[in-house]
Amino acid sequence: MSPTSLTTGQIARIVDAELHGPDDIIITGPAGVDEAVEGQICFIRSPEFVANWQSSKASAALVGRGLDMDVHPGRAVLIVEDDDLALVLLLKHIAEDDDSFAPGIHASAEVHPSATVSPEAFVGPNCVIGAGSTVAAGTRLIANVCVGAQVTIGASSTLHPGVVLYNNTTIGSRCLIHGNAVIGADGFGFRPDPSGKGLIKVPHIGTTLIGDEVEIGAGTCIDRGKLGPTTIGDGTKIDNLVQIGHNCTIGRSCIICGHTGIGGSVKLGDGVTIGGKVGLPDNITIGSGATLGGGSLAHDDIPAGETWIGVPAQPIRDAMACHAVFRRLPQLSRTVKRITRSLEDES
Amino acid sequence: MSPTSLTTGQIARIVDAELHGPDDIIITGPAGVDEAVEGQICFIRSPEFVANWQSSKASAALVGRGLDMDVHPGRAVLIVEDDDLALVLLLKHIAEDDDSFAPGIHASAEVHPSATVSPEAFVGPNCVIGAGSTVAAGTRLIANVCVGAQVTIGASSTLHPGVVLYNNTTIGSRCLIHGNAVIGADGFGFRPDPSGKGLIKVPHIGTTLIGDEVEIGAGTCIDRGKLGPTTIGDGTKIDNLVQIGHNCTIGRSCIICGHTGIGGSVKLGDGVTIGGKVGLPDNITIGSGATLGGGSLAHDDIPAGETWIGVPAQPIRDAMACHAVFRRLPQLSRTVKRITRSLEDES
Amino acid sequence: MSPTSLTTGQIARIVDAELHGPDDIIITGPAGVDEAVEGQICFIRSPEFVANWQSSKASAALVGRGLDMDVHPGRAVLIVEDDDLALVLLLKHIAEDDDSFAPGIHASAEVHPSATVSPEAFVGPNCVIGAGSTVAAGTRLIANVCVGAQVTIGASSTLHPGVVLYNNTTIGSRCLIHGNAVIGADGFGFRPDPSGKGLIKVPHIGTTLIGDEVEIGAGTCIDRGKLGPTTIGDGTKIDNLVQIGHNCTIGRSCIICGHTGIGGSVKLGDGVTIGGKVGLPDNITIGSGATLGGGSLAHDDIPAGETWIGVPAQPIRDAMACHAVFRRLPQLSRTVKRITRSLEDES
Repeated sequence: MSPTSLTTGQIARIVDAELHGPDDIIITGPAGVDEAVEGQICFIRSPEFVANWQSSKASAALVGRGLDMDVHPGRAVLIVEDDDLALVLLLKHIAEDDDSFAPGIHASAEVHPSATVSPEAFVGPNCVIGAGSTVAAGTRLIANVCVGAQVTIGASSTLHPGVVLYNNTTIGSRCLIHGNAVIGADGFGFRPDPSGKGLIKVPHIGTTLIGDEVEIGAGTCIDRGKLGPTTIGDGTKIDNLVQIGHNCTIGRSCIICGHTGIGGSVKLGDGVTIGGKVGLPDNITIGSGATLGGGSLAHDDIPAGETWIGVPAQPIRDAMACHAVFRRLPQLSRTVKRITRSLEDES
Repeated sequence: MSPTSLTTGQIARIVDAELHGPDDIIITGPAGVDEAVEGQICFIRSPEFVANWQSSKASAALVGRGLDMDVHPGRAVLIVEDDDLALVLLLKHIAEDDDSFAPGIHASAEVHPSATVSPEAFVGPNCVIGAGSTVAAGTRLIANVCVGAQVTIGASSTLHPGVVLYNNTTIGSRCLIHGNAVIGADGFGFRPDPSGKGLIKVPHIGTTLIGDEVEIGAGTCIDRGKLGPTTIGDGTKIDNLVQIGHNCTIGRSCIICGHTGIGGSVKLGDGVTIGGKVGLPDNITIGSGATLGGGSLAHDDIPAGETWIGVPAQPIRDAMACHAVFRRLPQLSRTVKRITRSLEDES
Repeated sequence: MSPTSLTTGQIARIVDAELHGPDDIIITGPAGVDEAVEGQICFIRSPEFVANWQSSKASAALVGRGLDMDVHPGRAVLIVEDDDLALVLLLKHIAEDDDSFAPGIHASAEVHPSATVSPEAFVGPNCVIGAGSTVAAGTRLIANVCVGAQVTIGASSTLHPGVVLYNNTTIGSRCLIHGNAVIGADGFGFRPDPSGKGLIKVPHIGTTLIGDEVEIGAGTCIDRGKLGPTTIGDGTKIDNLVQIGHNCTIGRSCIICGHTGIGGSVKLGDGVTIGGKVGLPDNITIGSGATLGGGSLAHDDIPAGETWIGVPAQPIRDAMACHAVFRRLPQLSRTVKRITRSLEDES
């Protein structure tokens, strides 16, 4: 729970709510309707929880228009058009208050003399910044972040502990990179040694370009390109433990859920949604606005705007039809046996 | 191999064995029956290896009751009721001897003045501990561990190098957290911007509560809750590279194998076993004592005590029946074609 | 793009090319045929790109023998027998020029007095090296690498930031270990407590042996053995976010792609290729030269030299036959219904 204190009036302004009841109740944080204590605000999002407001100890409730809520003495009801958005706005306000790092470079950080760190950036304990790299204003490297040589990090980005950026990586502005993510490691490419024994590594001398407002989850790995760049478009959000291979081109505002693995040279358009644990082999193309369901394994390109699912992935209607029969396979098999037998009996 | 030396008599007491042969043979460590050299102890767990004892160079053998083992001059045979448990007890004894870190805070560690570290804790090189955090007695942060603000770590826990704990994380006592695990990163939640362009981040201001005696594997990521906590129950064991989403409630003594991905707000009862590479989408509930086989993808809740498997997961009997027919699909298809043709011929 | 400058004559010698045109053009780096600017070299690998050479700004082209390329004034054409190998050789040359770390131990590194670091090794900022460990000549620990006690690292290996090596790990020569990989963590083994409540940890006191010329991807985790070692053979290449369990024996020159999970005591022969997101349960054996396709889940051993695929994995011909019918299951089901109905009508 955040230590932030806001009055009901301030919250009403933050979330653009119609306020019923006092505007000067001090709210110490959000809580569930049944767990809330005095001074907390709860969220009531469907009719079946309206009754709980009566017995709740919460001092305020944020509700969507249309729910029939009583206003009790000394308690406030805040009515909004879009309860989901209002919750996000309030959480965002509280969360922003949470962290405050004064600009500066910690004494234990190791910054190469040729690197340029904005005086308005924060470089925490045990961070390492290589030759020729730049860190723009408002950006925070929390602790133990390793930045290679010739790396560019834009403004107001946050890199959590243990993030590793290899040489020649570019990170945009207002990015959020979670703990132990690794960006710019070698692509995975080998070819048989002409001598017949062993494998020769294909060197990867390309770059990794991360756009603005990109979020990269904890432990996620994005490899650099072989010659050209691996590119992640503005506003794309990537969950934890995702692997993105060399030379991928990921569009803007895509959502890529946890444990998804994307091979080399894969292309995603804009606004693509990829569920968790999806596999995309090398060279696949996914059109803008397409959705690929969790656990799918794509064998083919997916056209823009379509929703596919399954192993191998198919348009969702086809996949569901196949799976419905799959679950009845034992019956189907028995039916076929019965038919075979009855035909044999006839002849 | 551990450098620990124990006599056969000491080992007999540790594993509660009936000792045949000398009690003063010095044992330098365990080894396989065929690889062992003089001074080592081997484990013989089934009748087909009894003959190898004759030719083995091992100085002692630990065997389950019921195996017919000869006692040779100068060699010891230790007979136990439960050979598996005896091996665990002996390994545990040896392993505990292995690590010894004198309490104290390494000169290169960065501990916030408002943090409280027990004088009996060990905080190794390049560790960072944030404001208001506490580390209890007997706990060891091996090296390069980053602990955020307002974090509580219980007694006698071990955090291996590279572990990252975000703000407001709570770790219980006697936990073991492996290298580069990340606990308390943001949950993965976004909603379309009302302006129609891009995505708005749903802030996650909740906490992460890890119980006592929890083991968390290398590279595993556990996200914090949106409002309330993400909870891992006492005694639960989590393998490497597992992802656990925001607001999950995982019960006690669960086993979760490697590469499993668990979405947001998933509930596991107590004593649940989840195989490797399993996918659990948001909001699924798995009842206590249930087992979900490796590689499964759950679409539905799983009742307590049941064993499910498959993609999508079904009760194991149903899944195996479906898969048995799946493997015979080409034959089934040919049979149906033959029937169709024979019926057409008739008409 | 690398800052390296080579003349066309030097490049011809590096890649063993037949040079047409001047040998003294200074080449600043490689680029695509359409993106190249003056001073760059492009790669033309198939006839449909030959026409682009005419309009390209590239100063040189590397082409496979047999492509019909014009030599323009002031531009060079380099003809090779194996264009793929030539590209690798050139990239390798450029990439090797990229990094130069003068030998020595950074002031912020923490090296145990009983550890031995070659004067020709590089130990970067915030690295930690434990008791009795050795680092051989030419090896580079870039930054924030944690090496436990009794670890041996061979010559000319590179460990990227955040790599964690547990006690008793052995790394060969000329290995490349990417950021945040964890080697030697505990195997995942537990047994029910005889008291009936909770789980007892099976201690893992074995070792981890990594051969020569092994590449290990970012975030990959390789657990140590229970008694004996976990072994990775010479020349094996492992991608990002792979999990390899305790006591596995992986042969030489294997390729293991991203997100693959390998259980305990699995055996791979030499030259095995494992696609991405593959699951191998405990105790499986894969014969030398076998290939297991991406997304597969093996239930059975795979014989040497065979290609298997699917969930569960089967020989590729069988798997493709099953999947072909799977995709037609709705039609098959309708056909069976029609037959059933027509037979009922008859009777």
